Amino acid sequence: MNPITRTLNVDNLLLLALQEDISSEDVTTNAVMPKACQGTVQLLCKQDGVIAGMEVFARVFTLLDEQTEMIPYVKDGDEVKKGDLLATVNGDIRVLLSGERTALNYLQRMSGIATYTRSVAKLLEGSKTTLLDTRKTTPNMRIFEKYAVKIGGGQNHRYNLSDGVLLKDNHIGAAGSVTKAIEMARDYAPFVRKIEVECETLDMVREAADAGADIIMLDNMTPAQMKEAVAVINGRAKTECSGNVTKENIAMILDAGVDYVSSGALTHSAPILDVSLKNLHPIEQV
Amino acid sequence: MNPITRTLNVDNLLLLALQEDISSEDVTTNAVMPKACQGTVQLLCKQDGVIAGMEVFARVFTLLDEQTEMIPYVKDGDEVKKGDLLATVNGDIRVLLSGERTALNYLQRMSGIATYTRSVAKLLEGSKTTLLDTRKTTPNMRIFEKYAVKIGGGQNHRYNLSDGVLLKDNHIGAAGSVTKAIEMARDYAPFVRKIEVECETLDMVREAADAGADIIMLDNMTPAQMKEAVAVINGRAKTECSGNVTKENIAMILDAGVDYVSSGALTHSAPILDVSLKNLHPIEQV
Amino acid sequence: MNPITRTLNVDNLLLLALQEDISSEDVTTNAVMPKACQGTVQLLCKQDGVIAGMEVFARVFTLLDEQTEMIPYVKDGDEVKKGDLLATVNGDIRVLLSGERTALNYLQRMSGIATYTRSVAKLLEGSKTTLLDTRKTTPNMRIFEKYAVKIGGGQNHRYNLSDGVLLKDNHIGAAGSVTKAIEMARDYAPFVRKIEVECETLDMVREAADAGADIIMLDNMTPAQMKEAVAVINGRAKTECSGNVTKENIAMILDAGVDYVSSGALTHSAPILDVSLKNLHPIEQV
Amino acid sequence: MNPITRTLNVDNLLLLALQEDISSEDVTTNAVMPKACQGTVQLLCKQDGVIAGMEVFARVFTLLDEQTEMIPYVKDGDEVKKGDLLATVNGDIRVLLSGERTALNYLQRMSGIATYTRSVAKLLEGSKTTLLDTRKTTPNMRIFEKYAVKIGGGQNHRYNLSDGVLLKDNHIGAAGSVTKAIEMARDYAPFVRKIEVECETLDMVREAADAGADIIMLDNMTPAQMKEAVAVINGRAKTECSGNVTKENIAMILDAGVDYVSSGALTHSAPILDVSLKNLHPIEQV
Amino acid sequence: MNPITRTLNVDNLLLLALQEDISSEDVTTNAVMPKACQGTVQLLCKQDGVIAGMEVFARVFTLLDEQTEMIPYVKDGDEVKKGDLLATVNGDIRVLLSGERTALNYLQRMSGIATYTRSVAKLLEGSKTTLLDTRKTTPNMRIFEKYAVKIGGGQNHRYNLSDGVLLKDNHIGAAGSVTKAIEMARDYAPFVRKIEVECETLDMVREAADAGADIIMLDNMTPAQMKEAVAVINGRAKTECSGNVTKENIAMILDAGVDYVSSGALTHSAPILDVSLKNLHPIEQV
Amino acid sequence: MNPITRTLNVDNLLLLALQEDISSEDVTTNAVMPKACQGTVQLLCKQDGVIAGMEVFARVFTLLDEQTEMIPYVKDGDEVKKGDLLATVNGDIRVLLSGERTALNYLQRMSGIATYTRSVAKLLEGSKTTLLDTRKTTPNMRIFEKYAVKIGGGQNHRYNLSDGVLLKDNHIGAAGSVTKAIEMARDYAPFVRKIEVECETLDMVREAADAGADIIMLDNMTPAQMKEAVAVINGRAKTECSGNVTKENIAMILDAGVDYVSSGALTHSAPILDVSLKNLHPIEQV
Repeated sequence: MNPITRTLNVDNLLLLALQEDISSEDVTTNAVMPKACQGTVQLLCKQDGVIAGMEVFARVFTLLDEQTEMIPYVKDGDEVKKGDLLATVNGDIRVLLSGERTALNYLQRMSGIATYTRSVAKLLEGSKTTLLDTRKTTPNMRIFEKYAVKIGGGQNHRYNLSDGVLLKDNHIGAAGSVTKAIEMARDYAPFVRKIEVECETLDMVREAADAGADIIMLDNMTPAQMKEAVAVINGRAKTECSGNVTKENIAMILDAGVDYVSSGALTHSAPILDVSLKNLHPIEQV
Repeated sequence: MNPITRTLNVDNLLLLALQEDISSEDVTTNAVMPKACQGTVQLLCKQDGVIAGMEVFARVFTLLDEQTEMIPYVKDGDEVKKGDLLATVNGDIRVLLSGERTALNYLQRMSGIATYTRSVAKLLEGSKTTLLDTRKTTPNMRIFEKYAVKIGGGQNHRYNLSDGVLLKDNHIGAAGSVTKAIEMARDYAPFVRKIEVECETLDMVREAADAGADIIMLDNMTPAQMKEAVAVINGRAKTECSGNVTKENIAMILDAGVDYVSSGALTHSAPILDVSLKNLHPIEQV
Repeated sequence: MNPITRTLNVDNLLLLALQEDISSEDVTTNAVMPKACQGTVQLLCKQDGVIAGMEVFARVFTLLDEQTEMIPYVKDGDEVKKGDLLATVNGDIRVLLSGERTALNYLQRMSGIATYTRSVAKLLEGSKTTLLDTRKTTPNMRIFEKYAVKIGGGQNHRYNLSDGVLLKDNHIGAAGSVTKAIEMARDYAPFVRKIEVECETLDMVREAADAGADIIMLDNMTPAQMKEAVAVINGRAKTECSGNVTKENIAMILDAGVDYVSSGALTHSAPILDVSLKNLHPIEQV
Repeated sequence: MNPITRTLNVDNLLLLALQEDISSEDVTTNAVMPKACQGTVQLLCKQDGVIAGMEVFARVFTLLDEQTEMIPYVKDGDEVKKGDLLATVNGDIRVLLSGERTALNYLQRMSGIATYTRSVAKLLEGSKTTLLDTRKTTPNMRIFEKYAVKIGGGQNHRYNLSDGVLLKDNHIGAAGSVTKAIEMARDYAPFVRKIEVECETLDMVREAADAGADIIMLDNMTPAQMKEAVAVINGRAKTECSGNVTKENIAMILDAGVDYVSSGALTHSAPILDVSLKNLHPIEQV
Repeated sequence: MNPITRTLNVDNLLLLALQEDISSEDVTTNAVMPKACQGTVQLLCKQDGVIAGMEVFARVFTLLDEQTEMIPYVKDGDEVKKGDLLATVNGDIRVLLSGERTALNYLQRMSGIATYTRSVAKLLEGSKTTLLDTRKTTPNMRIFEKYAVKIGGGQNHRYNLSDGVLLKDNHIGAAGSVTKAIEMARDYAPFVRKIEVECETLDMVREAADAGADIIMLDNMTPAQMKEAVAVINGRAKTECSGNVTKENIAMILDAGVDYVSSGALTHSAPILDVSLKNLHPIEQV
Repeated sequence: MNPITRTLNVDNLLLLALQEDISSEDVTTNAVMPKACQGTVQLLCKQDGVIAGMEVFARVFTLLDEQTEMIPYVKDGDEVKKGDLLATVNGDIRVLLSGERTALNYLQRMSGIATYTRSVAKLLEGSKTTLLDTRKTTPNMRIFEKYAVKIGGGQNHRYNLSDGVLLKDNHIGAAGSVTKAIEMARDYAPFVRKIEVECETLDMVREAADAGADIIMLDNMTPAQMKEAVAVINGRAKTECSGNVTKENIAMILDAGVDYVSSGALTHSAPILDVSLKNLHPIEQV
């Protein structure tokens, strides 16, 4: 994660999360440790999976105390095994204890998403179809979750409503027709935006392609319908398959020959990857 | 959800989430709908489960435009079926479209947690054991996730590090002994705090009960060990069972007779409950 | 301006601007007007031009007191003449006085940009070339200034560094070649992003078009060079002319046949349009 | 610029401006430069003028990465020539690229104001009249623009509505008379405030001087009227000439003998001074 | 308190204070009152004094729920007696309970300051000396405390370091001399600032008056010295007596004939005025 | 004060307080000291008392400039005498001058509370009764004031409405009875909360103890009544005496044998402890 992104777009969320967990003070730690004491702790993996979020994990601690140091033994994207030592973290034991839960909450969730994404992406290997995420992310977690998808081997769809045009049925209804909607979007949106249209029928697909859509989303179509749609489009636009795609049903999509398949489950339903901090102990200072 | 809580502790998070999704404008909606247009949309359930977050869902829209109105047909805690109409939302169609994803992201996640919690809580029915959540929540989602646990039938553990004392092995190590740690916590913490101690052995359990701990967490013990621990404590403290409790393994805990069992999975690994907005259409204004 | 955009992306900037001007209180107004007193004031035009920002102007007052009412006689984009009555504003005179300067500062600047943009856009009328703005906006004014450009008849280029890819010489240098840079961007950026490449030579133009660039920026080329570049590209990518374009030199670009011409001057050097509030007087309340 | 001012009153605005330009990440730079790479870039002047904002320019980069270093060859207030090397900036190339536009947007605007102010101030040299700015600044830019006026050789009028008393016609109307308004202001405002009164006629000037006004603003008077007003006041108050003063018409004011002349154009209509970053290249690290 | 001041400078502090007291929810109230219930409560005075902060008190409740209504029976500045009914507050009982402590904390403190200030101001009645506050206010309470001083009959000194010039010994030392310091301040500070100089000796007083100081602070002088200083100044500047002035020692200052006497004790050591909410009970709704 | 608490819960309040005092710049200091100049200043005690807030005092300066260094000669909780040298502060003289008032405002208030608390706590020495604070703190000062109480020898009651249950008469009324209120609180509140009930009669005390209250507050009872209440409770709950307890009347409470006595006066009416910065002078830099 780029340090600029971290400064401008990540640190404020991490601080908010820390303040959520420490609204006045860590009363337990402060009761028994009135003074700084250097220590070290191990970050251990408790499940097989793909790790994502190592720098976010470390940043939680350095925000509390910039003297804290993480020594990583893996990097984002690595496949890790139950029992692996992922990192050691050294610093004031009070910082290690007070930051533990927040740091793990980020790392577990990001790694869970990377792990699940990797498993879905593998099903697409060898095909021409690329896996995409959606905007079905956890509120105030998008920057972390979209990053984790990428680490897992997926590609990102638009980041939010401001940086991509996606004309859905209601937009088309308001405009009057697919063609009119595409024209209005082209007039209004910054010219660097691609224009995507969600189509439910072959007629809509045909109209969208004729009107110059950059991307056509095939919504809730059968594989056979999608195949036909791809033929109609004939390379004039990129194609995206959408609609409750999961690990279980993705195989049947491959044959349709779409360019992209998007899955909300990557971010909204991946279970976490279990990791934990163990073996904390004081260390002598020179 | 109490309106005071909403004003002081919820609105700022909802706004942040909306700004995450709309960093400059909803370019698609603004392209095709330059003017306000009243409409209505249906909130439909696409999976069986327990609904949670109806007011949060509505609040996303009223934050964008206080004229928006949700007419609910269910309330938090209701068991809902695939196909159920949960609510209609009326307002400026632009608001309905621009707020849709953020509102659903909250509702789906909260309902997913309530649904999973309900299914676990049912396994405890008839026993003396109460289900608890943990601090393993998604960052910046705690207030929503802990609420959903309660709606699902669980109880909340401490909210954060500031409002509960939980002495873990490292705290005990720093203090010197279980007894000393409890004394230091009693001296330091506001006297309204209960003192909980995490114990891994019967000896620790005994020492904690003798020293006046209010709650004793039995960490990674077998059901047999827990039973013995409960006998040793003999009502002098509340007991909590912790350690990777899931729907699959919770039954074997019941027999141990602990007061509480806490499960991180309630908040960190519940899949979402699928709900969606459908059938948006303009309405005539009188 | 869409009310959602206003709520999420505008109000916080207006409040910050008001707090810049009123850090504790409006001491003059408070000295002489201890109580609310209804009044009305006229917004008059003091120069010919194009008006932009009427809703922003009104919002400054309603943020201070939602009872304030603006009755507009023109709308954004209208050509206005010196002496025109643009609006009346009714409300607590204290609000009219305390908000006056901030409201005018926005309106004058936005209208200045719209006026200048309109005058440049007129030079392009009849050609196939569209006028674009740049990121050379005043800090913390981008949302207002890009809106004003659009009102003036320009189109918006990318909003910021997050929502558009523009490979400049340094990016190309880091990647190794134009082709490599385009590939890296395609791999990394969300697939909804168009990829633009800044080219200084015909060789670069050729390589960019061959590698599938969506937009090619012709940087500091002569009209003759641009014409040649357009021929080389031959419709495979959109073309943008950039580099110190002003009202004075834009005519010679027309002949080159580029799709877009971008001008930083629209936002960084347009003088304001002079407007003012006059004839404030108390009104009887019914 | 004092480091305290920077910490308390500047950094938050710079961060906001950077977040305006980087709402999730600099997608172009991150695509081609996954790792840190040291580089250097030159800040070149492209127009003759007066430089202002060198420390603000540098601060944009050090906020992103405190390792960035600017080596300045000029200081605020220096007259610079087209082609001059103003500074070199060394640091992570990603920081240099991502911060470039925001840093230049500040420096160009501040230098533009300093340049225009210097040119007006020169017209007043040798006279007893001092040049003042106004509150007609760009929203959320006041601290930068008032600083630039000072660097250009102007003096600052009041900073905002909270720190100066200026009784205008509407205030006087509300109070009942000039004398009454001055009395009310003296009663209400902190005693460290000077009291300024805007006067349109000689009668008002006389009354204001008699009532003990500290400063009398001569509003839209002819040079002859101003001369007479100065005579009436006879040193009992400072005098300020106001009303659409520009470089073109300022000369005729000199003869009137007022103490101050204020000009909104200094901040609202100065064109930028063109500066740019050039010749970025990687550097070897020792 | 002006509604503009409230919106721009007060509401954010009140919200912060409410969030300090309600970091997740009012757990007691929410436990026993799951639903809204209209009620009324009385604001009673428990000590004789001067009331200040009635609108701030009411605003705490309307921020939580704008339906809350306060019916005041006294206004800021009124002398109140033990047992007086000051107001009734009607609204959702949950709002009345959750906002009670924060609302009272403001009202008690502001009224305490007004009461103490009134008692000191009375000692100055009939003299030519005006009572002033200082910057010795409670952090983040200045706007409330300076307002309370005014309600109590004192005048405000400068609001903060930005809106007044006060040259102390260290500033004079840095400048080189009293005269030089005054010149530097006149050159640097906006011309609407009065220049005050802190003087410890008659020589300094003389130099300051000669150099054109607007206000001369007589620091830690005896009444006799002050009298002499006033004679030296002879109307050329306003005079302020400073240095641990309290109710007990203020009388001996009167004779010195200074214009102003400032007292930090007004804001830093006034005890609160005891007020409380009593007789809360539900009311029938029509 | 733990550095984590400082980062998450203190720094933002200190910055807000500094911005309250410096809304644009310290105009006096900047006028006479355009450049950094190293200096040293002494923190002197001007009254006998207990010091509290040394780290907060230092933090105000290091927030402005992290190079500033405080060398403390006392630590929080020490009894200090008039004339004692408490610390020296070294750094840029501009930082020492601009931060002085804010730093002292915190230290004086916190030390005043510690001093007053110590004097009350001494009256309880030898008894079984512990002194408690309340929520009657100055808005946005709670974290500092509760810390000062602890330094003075008191214990903290609940921090805010979110982290403690205290059932008052209105809560009991809403629930229907003391017993019902306790049950509702036990059902609703996180199980780590102790439940406290405010009782005005012996009957209520008996009901609360029978229903399992953890703490019983004896509200406005005579010493004799309290003694009887303690007998009724007979160790089943902790007891707290509340109601306008001050230094003057606390002795008569001791005999009642309650566990805790709470006093709002500790935080709402303690006068400050007078301390000041003296003998500032430049120092040579090596």
